[in-house]
Amino acid sequence: MNKHALLHKSKSEMAYAYDSDTLHIWLRTAKDDFNSIKLVYGDPFRYEPIDEAQTKWVWKHENANDLMMDKRFSDSEYDYYFSAIKPEHKRIKYAFILDDAYLYGVREIYDLTHDIDQKKRYNLFNYFNFPYLNEADIIRIPKWVKDTIWYEIFPERFKRSGNANNKPTHPWGIPAEKVTNHMFFGGNLEGIIESLDYLVDLGITGIYFTPIFKAPSSHKYDTTDYKMIDPAFGTNADFKRLVDESHKRGIKVVLDAVFNHCGYDHPFFQDVIKHGKNSKYYNSFFIKSEPMLNFDLTSDGKPVYHRGLISNYHTFAFTPYMPKWNTEDPLARAHLLDVARYWIEEYDIDGWRLDVSNEVSHDFWRAFKQTVKQAKPDAFIFGENWDYSFPWLGGDQIDTVMNYELIYLIWQFFGFDVNIPRITAGELVRMTNKLLVSYPQQITENMFNLVDSHDTARILHRCKENTRLAFLTYLFMFSFPGTPTIYYGGEIGMTGDHDPDNRRCMIWDENHQNHKFKAQIKQLIRWRKSMDAFGSSDFRWIHHDDSKNVIVYEKRGSKNLMFMINNAPETNTIHLPQAVYGYDIESQKRVQNNIFTLIPYSYLIIQLD
Amino acid sequence: MNKHALLHKSKSEMAYAYDSDTLHIWLRTAKDDFNSIKLVYGDPFRYEPIDEAQTKWVWKHENANDLMMDKRFSDSEYDYYFSAIKPEHKRIKYAFILDDAYLYGVREIYDLTHDIDQKKRYNLFNYFNFPYLNEADIIRIPKWVKDTIWYEIFPERFKRSGNANNKPTHPWGIPAEKVTNHMFFGGNLEGIIESLDYLVDLGITGIYFTPIFKAPSSHKYDTTDYKMIDPAFGTNADFKRLVDESHKRGIKVVLDAVFNHCGYDHPFFQDVIKHGKNSKYYNSFFIKSEPMLNFDLTSDGKPVYHRGLISNYHTFAFTPYMPKWNTEDPLARAHLLDVARYWIEEYDIDGWRLDVSNEVSHDFWRAFKQTVKQAKPDAFIFGENWDYSFPWLGGDQIDTVMNYELIYLIWQFFGFDVNIPRITAGELVRMTNKLLVSYPQQITENMFNLVDSHDTARILHRCKENTRLAFLTYLFMFSFPGTPTIYYGGEIGMTGDHDPDNRRCMIWDENHQNHKFKAQIKQLIRWRKSMDAFGSSDFRWIHHDDSKNVIVYEKRGSKNLMFMINNAPETNTIHLPQAVYGYDIESQKRVQNNIFTLIPYSYLIIQLD
Repeated sequence: MNKHALLHKSKSEMAYAYDSDTLHIWLRTAKDDFNSIKLVYGDPFRYEPIDEAQTKWVWKHENANDLMMDKRFSDSEYDYYFSAIKPEHKRIKYAFILDDAYLYGVREIYDLTHDIDQKKRYNLFNYFNFPYLNEADIIRIPKWVKDTIWYEIFPERFKRSGNANNKPTHPWGIPAEKVTNHMFFGGNLEGIIESLDYLVDLGITGIYFTPIFKAPSSHKYDTTDYKMIDPAFGTNADFKRLVDESHKRGIKVVLDAVFNHCGYDHPFFQDVIKHGKNSKYYNSFFIKSEPMLNFDLTSDGKPVYHRGLISNYHTFAFTPYMPKWNTEDPLARAHLLDVARYWIEEYDIDGWRLDVSNEVSHDFWRAFKQTVKQAKPDAFIFGENWDYSFPWLGGDQIDTVMNYELIYLIWQFFGFDVNIPRITAGELVRMTNKLLVSYPQQITENMFNLVDSHDTARILHRCKENTRLAFLTYLFMFSFPGTPTIYYGGEIGMTGDHDPDNRRCMIWDENHQNHKFKAQIKQLIRWRKSMDAFGSSDFRWIHHDDSKNVIVYEKRGSKNLMFMINNAPETNTIHLPQAVYGYDIESQKRVQNNIFTLIPYSYLIIQLD
Repeated sequence: MNKHALLHKSKSEMAYAYDSDTLHIWLRTAKDDFNSIKLVYGDPFRYEPIDEAQTKWVWKHENANDLMMDKRFSDSEYDYYFSAIKPEHKRIKYAFILDDAYLYGVREIYDLTHDIDQKKRYNLFNYFNFPYLNEADIIRIPKWVKDTIWYEIFPERFKRSGNANNKPTHPWGIPAEKVTNHMFFGGNLEGIIESLDYLVDLGITGIYFTPIFKAPSSHKYDTTDYKMIDPAFGTNADFKRLVDESHKRGIKVVLDAVFNHCGYDHPFFQDVIKHGKNSKYYNSFFIKSEPMLNFDLTSDGKPVYHRGLISNYHTFAFTPYMPKWNTEDPLARAHLLDVARYWIEEYDIDGWRLDVSNEVSHDFWRAFKQTVKQAKPDAFIFGENWDYSFPWLGGDQIDTVMNYELIYLIWQFFGFDVNIPRITAGELVRMTNKLLVSYPQQITENMFNLVDSHDTARILHRCKENTRLAFLTYLFMFSFPGTPTIYYGGEIGMTGDHDPDNRRCMIWDENHQNHKFKAQIKQLIRWRKSMDAFGSSDFRWIHHDDSKNVIVYEKRGSKNLMFMINNAPETNTIHLPQAVYGYDIESQKRVQNNIFTLIPYSYLIIQLD
């Protein structure tokens, strides 16, 4: 037995309430260490008599023969065992029986072969405890989220309406030089409204907008006025129309809550610059020392940033034009919570994406969630956390996050980036398994999955401009537990390197769109919507081959699906241990085989009988 | 390298903010797996130029030679490494360098001997992230708690004032039959007030009272009226006087918040019995099915409990006279929060001990903490959690808990209970190490430590009535990180088996008190108060011997202390690898030796030079 590999903690991602009646229990063991894991559990307070006179009582565990756990994931390092149970009185004590030889409890591991003392076996001091399944603590995410097909729009670059009266610096399209964040192409809300039917045709049911409030930059992460649509994008009334038109078409609207920091021009911050310690907003920020402005200003009064600058106030990263909010300050806090409420109550938005959510206090997000859910109980809140995020996802703060943990794996397995070491199929299996046990199931199935965003190189670029390969990343994302997202233009084969090159103008000229790719993406969306297994969270690895770079996995639903992906520039043959019966969902042809030949960068999806 | 034993998670008990500037970082490895662990860290956003023209920038990590971590705990299974760091900009990315051979990151372990690629070594994708140390998220516990010497009082049995006009069923003292929970001996608040000088003389600075609100039982965990002192105990005015007199003597007062359930006689519950679904309090409880009362009633209308009964409403355990509150119900919630505020605002109590805190929702405790800390910012809240409790202790709910995780180990190492398997010295070391890394340091140092309580057999009974042995348990508790507690009468050698035998009347007759034991306990309290190392949280195991049952540990402070304990019925000799210089704090004699002989069940405490 490998003791060191054993891992379980109660009241964690390994033991949590899935719904009002159900607990999910996970155990990690070393790979192939045991043949069977059983879960022994019962009500902490329930005893039963063992003699007729009822003078002797022993702890009553629910399952006389114990419950066999399901080896749900398995990889080169670990096995992960799973059980879902419904405790009659909403509370359990439990332990794990390993190969009928050991009892793994919260304090000790007992060797049952040497010491089959029933007293020790059922010694509740050594049992894990899930003290009570309280309704208020169940992590619940709005029902609509799970089936949403997301589309991310960077408004300055998505669509310029013919009627636009803003004044871009550049005409729509590809400029002579490379795109920069200082260029303005005049994208606006009217343009987006005009494009809604395009999105409906594609199959989109939710839009995440990067910021649209008044701000000097093209990306608008440096907010000047949180209650005003940027005039170049249109008016608040335009936005109201955009939400209404979206809702008419069954499309949800989520805005970007940039609450970690504001822009240099925000009136609170300008007031502090002007009045220093006498400003009532002095504590709305973190002023570290004097002089507050330890950098040069441009002729129009903006900070001049140079690499290496450390300003005398806290900022996002080291960018002086993004002063960090002190969300403990009552004025700052009230202001931001008011904004959170305002756009829901006045404009009926459906949720917030939280910028830099991992740098804002947990305490603030708790207040934020209460405010938002009070205004709209089924509003969706997801964060921009790039790392392990369970400390934010306990149900009291943020619903889910942009799944950057998944994106790394997609980039590492499918992509080519000299700064990101590639991984083998086996490593993909191991790391996705780790990811799938990192969060309660209801979080996993509502994760905001993506292959790229306004913060990353476009996926086609990472795939060396190979659309066959890029499609595999979309396919993998669409079939992985969570909700899929398309970054605007990804569907028509737009490419681009890191920010700002990933923010090129959307290509509306049909002569320059990749129609074949778009048709594939549309089909992918149709598949995801029409087959419940496609979007189910019941994902299981079936097979992988490091030397060939092929992977095979299954998704379970009313009809199970098997996915085979050949992530290699060569044709590869997959030998499965047993024949597969079903039909190819693309060709609609019957499949009855255990050997499959896949051409370079291709896939096969079989609906199993 | 033992990969499976490696354990680290950011934003957990292994990486947390200790104060406004300091992060604590822990790493677990297999025992003796590495000679050195280094922490490499830096600001996530800080880069430095590596060429004069400043065209190439690389990530700047703070510590050019990396930071050597301290092997703080070590046992038969694991080593635990520790570092405290102060990140300049309150945020870090970090990884661990194992023996200069491996880099352990959040995603992967790199072999540095085969691949000393600097790009890979400083690939931030693979670094752990502590995104921001926000002030609002720091776990802070009121400053006074750490140095408190607690005393637990069970009021019905502590002291009956000469002026008492309540009507006990039994005269004070030991009844002919064994003590039961149905007996009343007439203890009251006036009696406690009369005893405050006794407690001052002992050295007590905080009292935790089991419930004192109106309730039919002797233990009063079945509350009828949360705003009224039980008439047998006195009046609300008496309690006000008790608090004032305690405060005058530098003694804090903590009451028992029995908010998981109320008593059968509580007016809300009685209203539901009377009006069923028409009661406005129907949702204040969990009524599962009809008839609501599926049990017999006594002649005075109380439920008749029998083992095996499962009532048709949720209860604490299966006791029908303790209906569980639905703390999500607005009426129940408002009622309980009002009570929490009332006793602080009107009577100036210093905190709440939360009964069955692990079965009440996290959501309720968040609201409770806000209410309590608003009423009195330095009020202390500790819970009755018998298991691993970090999910409650993140700073948003409960300050600390009754340290039952420690009590088990004390019982197992020092005590004799056929139902509790004994442990060796080595197992004590391993399990205390595990406990000490289970919580952030500020929690550990404010834990409510105990050797017994109204819910357990008395420690002297567990120690087979051997006061020498019992004293060792007090010594160990008093020198273990956390705050020590004496369950009333423990100091004079009171004994007793499990509830109700552990609730005998306090012995005030000096002829029946163990004066020698009391003197020892008083000295222990003086030591703890006068030497900062005694109560410090810097605890380190020095030596242990399984065959002899001896342990040696050190506590660090302005002058370090070394504790040697011989937990054996034989005289034992301890050989330390090197000589110890200092003096015996009891005999005040000089010590300069590496061999120590301890008689049965004895100790030696050396203040080191």
